[in-house]
Amino acid sequence: MVSHLWESLGLHGKRVLILHHDDLGLLHAQNAAYEVLGFPTGSIMVPAGWGAQLAHRPHLDLGVHLTLTSEWRAPRLRPLTTSASLRDSSGHFWSTVEEAWLHIRTEEAEAELRAQIHAALAMGIDVTHVDTHMGAVLRPDLAEIYLKLALEFRLPAFIPESLEAINLPAPLRLPIESLLDRAPLPKVRWLDSYPVPPDQRRAWYLDTLSRAGPGVYHLIHHSALPTPEAQSLPDWEKRKADYEALQDAEVRRVIGEFTLLTYRQVREALRRVG
Amino acid sequence: MVSHLWESLGLHGKRVLILHHDDLGLLHAQNAAYEVLGFPTGSIMVPAGWGAQLAHRPHLDLGVHLTLTSEWRAPRLRPLTTSASLRDSSGHFWSTVEEAWLHIRTEEAEAELRAQIHAALAMGIDVTHVDTHMGAVLRPDLAEIYLKLALEFRLPAFIPESLEAINLPAPLRLPIESLLDRAPLPKVRWLDSYPVPPDQRRAWYLDTLSRAGPGVYHLIHHSALPTPEAQSLPDWEKRKADYEALQDAEVRRVIGEFTLLTYRQVREALRRVG
Repeated sequence: MVSHLWESLGLHGKRVLILHHDDLGLLHAQNAAYEVLGFPTGSIMVPAGWGAQLAHRPHLDLGVHLTLTSEWRAPRLRPLTTSASLRDSSGHFWSTVEEAWLHIRTEEAEAELRAQIHAALAMGIDVTHVDTHMGAVLRPDLAEIYLKLALEFRLPAFIPESLEAINLPAPLRLPIESLLDRAPLPKVRWLDSYPVPPDQRRAWYLDTLSRAGPGVYHLIHHSALPTPEAQSLPDWEKRKADYEALQDAEVRRVIGEFTLLTYRQVREALRRVG
Repeated sequence: MVSHLWESLGLHGKRVLILHHDDLGLLHAQNAAYEVLGFPTGSIMVPAGWGAQLAHRPHLDLGVHLTLTSEWRAPRLRPLTTSASLRDSSGHFWSTVEEAWLHIRTEEAEAELRAQIHAALAMGIDVTHVDTHMGAVLRPDLAEIYLKLALEFRLPAFIPESLEAINLPAPLRLPIESLLDRAPLPKVRWLDSYPVPPDQRRAWYLDTLSRAGPGVYHLIHHSALPTPEAQSLPDWEKRKADYEALQDAEVRRVIGEFTLLTYRQVREALRRVG
């Protein structure tokens, strides 16, 4: 069924783009950039405070940015559940994926991630998809939970066609690839601006998008206004560079050559066939 | 013993000021104003994300701003505990004190407030005192918990000498006053800039402080930088007015005529006598 999903949406042979705003809800500056840019698709870090600003706005295309890590000195996030294995001695999520993978118990992660989806729905977010903060769900047991929750809530999950660009420990690569291959969910071609140096960001958008052939692309950006709040994150220049590039007229012209796809369209197509 | 506490600190007959920054941790802009102003005393909303920025800095004089309400559309805060009576249907704390008082179960409030103090300590805050966000602990059973926790953790609690300025429902006034009267904790003269219109704020500081006779005053301010983040709160002009007034040379001169007191000094005096 899933192999026909893009055809059922009339997308076969087209150049299709999901322009995806990560880390919504984390900062006022992240939400503010989302409002200015006007692209509908992104995902919310539910344990953070600013997600409520985007609730009860049914025309938005918002997913849950499933969170098991909190990497900045501040703002720091706590799990919604009281599970001990999800938090460091300060009570917050682990700072790194490595620490998270060392400590997190499968069943506590499942309860937490399910709680994040329930909490987004309770807040008045019409959740259209799930994705993963920092790829923390790529430990195989957590990836199983990720797929299980997507199926349980009948949501698309962000699943890249290829994991080549991810720095996965070798023993995890095969199990994860096999798991994702078998998932009855559509897969996308993954484009990520994050590793690109800020001063090359605009050129990267232009080159990458101009050269992209037919296919369904999920392009991740982290746009934020360069306010004092955002500037307290060490990577703020990356966030600013996305924000500026996506306001650039030439970048917008190149984006305009794609069929823009929302996860709501994908969700509705999935729910029709499944 | 408590009647002698101020004497034991050599404060008898003096004009003493605790200049107290409320709502730390709620916004980057609130913490940033605290850094610029340089006064040491304030309290952190532990369920918010920015408190961690102030952790592991033992020269600061920080308490826990015990929180049972979350009044803004965003950022919105969730209880640390999973207790059902503490949250509205969106999963956040109640928006108003009235709703909170209608719904909150005593034992769930106690667990939550204790969790907030434990969480602050776990974060690396050398907690020097407790106070209350929006006066939500003024329901008599909650006020009992407030005092009980202060004694349990051997911390001073913000307790005003008079509740006249508080709009308490009539049936609560007598039980609360009697409870606070009996508390074996020092009481302060309460000054609050919040109700003063922003354009009169500087004059209020000058007049109020110049006219204050001997006594120990706890002056509440809500200073925040007027950034886009802060401006998303409807009361941002009040926060900006405090921030500007407290940078004013004349206001600082008048403040300089007081003996500035920290809650750490009060805590240490309490621990010596009790």
